[in-house]
Order: sequence, then C-alpha cells, then structure tokens
Amino acid sequence: MPANKPPVSVLGLGMMGSALAAAFLKAGHPVTVWNRSAAKTGPLVAQGALPATTAAEAVTESPLVVLCLLTNDNVEKLFATLPDAVAGKTLVNLTNGTPAQARDLAAWAAKHGARYIDGGIVAVPQMIAGPHAYVLYSGDEQAYETHRPTLAALGGTKWTGTDPGLAALHDLALLTGMYGMVLGVMQAFALVRTENIPATEFSELLVPWISAMLGGAPEWAEAIDSGGHLTDVSSIAVNHAAFPNFLAAFRDQGVRTDLFEPFQAILDRAMAEGYEADGLSRIADLLRVRG
Amino acid sequence: MPANKPPVSVLGLGMMGSALAAAFLKAGHPVTVWNRSAAKTGPLVAQGALPATTAAEAVTESPLVVLCLLTNDNVEKLFATLPDAVAGKTLVNLTNGTPAQARDLAAWAAKHGARYIDGGIVAVPQMIAGPHAYVLYSGDEQAYETHRPTLAALGGTKWTGTDPGLAALHDLALLTGMYGMVLGVMQAFALVRTENIPATEFSELLVPWISAMLGGAPEWAEAIDSGGHLTDVSSIAVNHAAFPNFLAAFRDQGVRTDLFEPFQAILDRAMAEGYEADGLSRIADLLRVRG
Repeated sequence: MPANKPPVSVLGLGMMGSALAAAFLKAGHPVTVWNRSAAKTGPLVAQGALPATTAAEAVTESPLVVLCLLTNDNVEKLFATLPDAVAGKTLVNLTNGTPAQARDLAAWAAKHGARYIDGGIVAVPQMIAGPHAYVLYSGDEQAYETHRPTLAALGGTKWTGTDPGLAALHDLALLTGMYGMVLGVMQAFALVRTENIPATEFSELLVPWISAMLGGAPEWAEAIDSGGHLTDVSSIAVNHAAFPNFLAAFRDQGVRTDLFEPFQAILDRAMAEGYEADGLSRIADLLRVRG
Repeated sequence: MPANKPPVSVLGLGMMGSALAAAFLKAGHPVTVWNRSAAKTGPLVAQGALPATTAAEAVTESPLVVLCLLTNDNVEKLFATLPDAVAGKTLVNLTNGTPAQARDLAAWAAKHGARYIDGGIVAVPQMIAGPHAYVLYSGDEQAYETHRPTLAALGGTKWTGTDPGLAALHDLALLTGMYGMVLGVMQAFALVRTENIPATEFSELLVPWISAMLGGAPEWAEAIDSGGHLTDVSSIAVNHAAFPNFLAAFRDQGVRTDLFEPFQAILDRAMAEGYEADGLSRIADLLRVRG
C-alpha cells in the first residue's frame, strides 16, 4: 500500500456510501466512517475503516469529508449539528439532490468556513471504482483540484463548473433520461406480458431497438441547440396520428395508460401550435415553462 | 434483374409506403402503386412502378397487396370499398395499429375470401431494406410462408404467431419502449438547456449512460418473468426517496413536470403496497390493470 495517502471521512453508509468508503480503502486511503445507525459500519471496519462515534468526530478526522445520505434534507440536518467542526474542511456532498439544494448547502458551508463541492454519481453502487463509473463535480474549483487525486478512487472525475448546482443539474438530467427509458421498458414489458410473451424473450428485440433509436439523440440535440426541428424521419404529425393506438392498445390489453397520457397531451399541444412537420426534438422546447 | 419475381401492389404512399414500394422495385418485383392523392405516385413511377387509378385496380394487379396507410381507420374505410376485389388475395397490412384492430381486419378479410397478415415495421423509412430493418408478422401463416421471399425485400422477417394481433402487440411494445426513452431524453435536454448547456455537449454523456442502464433490461425481464423483484442494485425505496428531487428541480429550473408526475405516483403506489425492497422491475407488474 502506498504510504501517506490523505485521509478521507465518509458520512452515510447506505449502499452507495459503503461502496464509496470501500473504494477509498481499496485505494489505500485511511478512511473514517460514520452512519446514523452504527450497525452499518461493521463491514467497512472489517476492511480497515475507523468507526467514528459521532458525525463531528468523523469530520474532525480528515480534511476531506464525503457525504452520501439518502436526501439533502438529511444533509442539511446533519450540517446543523456540525457548525464548529467544518471550518477548514472540504465537504464533498454526493447525496442525490437538486441544484437549488446544492447552492443552499454551498452557502451554508461558506458561512461556516468550509469549502463545498457538490457531486453527482453517474453509477450504481456496484459500478463504483470500475471503468464505467464517474462522478460529476461543481462548486469550489480549487478544493476540487486539491482533492481530485483522492476522489479519483471512486471513478472518473468530471468538472461541470463553479455554480455548485451544475453537478446536480447534470446528474438529475442523466437520471431523468434513464427514468424515461425505464418507464418505456416497463410499459413495454407490461404490454407483452398481457399475452404471456416472456419478457426475457421480448427484451432481445427491445434492447437493440431502443439502442438503435437512441442513436438519434445527437441529431435531436443539434435540432434543439439550433432551433431547427424540421425532419424527414419521424414527424410530430406521424407520431400524433399513431399515438392513440398506444393508449387504445394499453386499455384493450389491460395495461394502465397513466405513464403515457402526458405524452399524448404534449403531442396534441405540438400539433395545436403548428409543429406538425417538426421532429420529436420539438418536445424539448415545449417542455420549457414559458412566462 | 432476375426474371419472374412475383408482382406486388402497395397501397398508401406516405414516407413509409413509398420506402416499401421502392424496396420492392429495387428487388426486381413488378410493383403497382396507389395513393389516395395521386401526386405521390410520381417518384415511384419514375423508378418503374405502375400507377393504379383506383385501389381496386391496384388490388387486382397482384396476388400480394401491401397496405401502409396512416391509421387502421383508413384501412377499414378502404377495405369497405373493396369487398369484391380482395377474394383470393393476400393482404399484408403494415399500418401502425392495435392488436384489436388487426384482429377485426383479419375477420373482415376472412369473410371476404382474402388471406390476412398483419405486420409491424421495426424501422424508420430511411432504414427500409437496410441491414437493421425488420418487420414483425402475424396472422395467416401459410400466406406468410408463401410470400416471405417477397416480403424479405423490406428487411428481416420475424413471425410472431397466428393471432393476427401479435405483430401489432410486439410493434407497439417496441415503440412504447422507444417513446419512454424519447420522453426521458427530451426532458433531460430541456433541463440542461435551462442553464444554457448545449444539448449536443450533454448528449455525449446522456447516450452512453442510457445505453449502460439499458443493459439492465434483461435482468428486469428475468425478474418480471419469475416474479422475484428483490434487488441489491437500485430499490424502489431509493428511487422513491430521490424522485421528489426531480420534480423539484424541474419546477425550480422552469421545466414542466407533467411527463414525470405519473412516475412519482407509481413509485408512491409501490411503496404503499410494500415493495420498497424490490427493484424497478416491480413497476411492470403494477402497470397491469387488476380486476
């Protein structure tokens, strides 16, 4: 093990927090761990982590404090118990949260003499420290550069900007894309299961098809950036003509329509606003609240 | 050009119908074309197609009649004008529609002495006859086997069963998966655009991420087929805890929440029914209407 790797404290030992602590340990960092319910420290202590009795003690142990709680409400409550402990520390908050929350927590940290980095983990716990995991960071850039070699133990590092909200924005947007895919896949599986078609069999068609269609995303992105949505591939008009078939088929086959009714509504709106010759990329513009 | 390729008639010359007719021509089949507004026959006639003045004339010209209209309502209305012409013909209806519509049209065809095959095209028009296009078929299996060599001009052929609704069911399910992905991608692009992040730049993160997460689909499928949804990757509880952040971030940033509110509702329901330790695959079960 290389000597003198800087110490890290990890607060919050859910599945993700435990994976983060294990990755720091594996990379040779002294790791102090704390969790609200102490039972979760066991496996990490077995791997060489030092258990802290209180969050304040954990913060005191290391210049770099990584937080991964269930919500930022929990982070805010935890911070409220630590105002004196955080001065001079770098707080890296990898809890899933909103840009607004990140900005608020950064302001709190600044007020208490701490450096704040917000982060979004682009991975599930099993992927941490693996070749495909990376973490988005934003906030205090100097602190980020200082601790980047340590943070690299978790996976790739991707800087998104000094606005502390930007990592969360990117992270939520990535997860939003995933959730859309998930709800499409779940609705599709529910539909084929109504005729007892095995989902495993159908997934052999579904995965390559969605992958192929996802290949259109860079073109949608260009249309969105340029505002030129006219298409000769798949127009709003064609999709609008076909969409009632989907809702009808869901009803006929006994699958709930809830998840897809808003998509019908937005296609209706696109038609009403005269975008029938545009591609589906027009939807991204229609999703912006005007005012 | 190989001699004696069997003739085909194509009814409906929208973007997709025109692509189908062009593919048959390219494969060396004599092709008769008809469209409600005759102007669209021009480019195909230039490629060697014979224009028919009426739909009945087009049906008379070939033993194999391929239909690709905008909706099955249009197919039903067209069929109503053709009861005498269709006897002895094989009708291949590639119009996007529901399983119930396909079953109704098959019954109509049987009553009028025609063989009926329903189909779902798994491709956009530009992909027709290319290496990645295929068409799902269901209905009259003997007619399918007879005409399969001709239909192969469009792309791969995939038989789904003698229930005429099965091709539409598979097709709608594939498109449903795609629509979910599309709405996720559009919502994600809308979100990053609120901070003026170029969609083209963000798509370089988004596409590989969704692709990676899509790799979980076969495991979700296994969970759905077996009914064993317990997970150690990403539980309903973890997703439920994070989801309000998405709706809050959309609101904070000025993006409409409509498309994702139903996803919150279904996560709420999964929690209320005690599925907090299950994976997201549980959602497919919750989408089935009970009764």
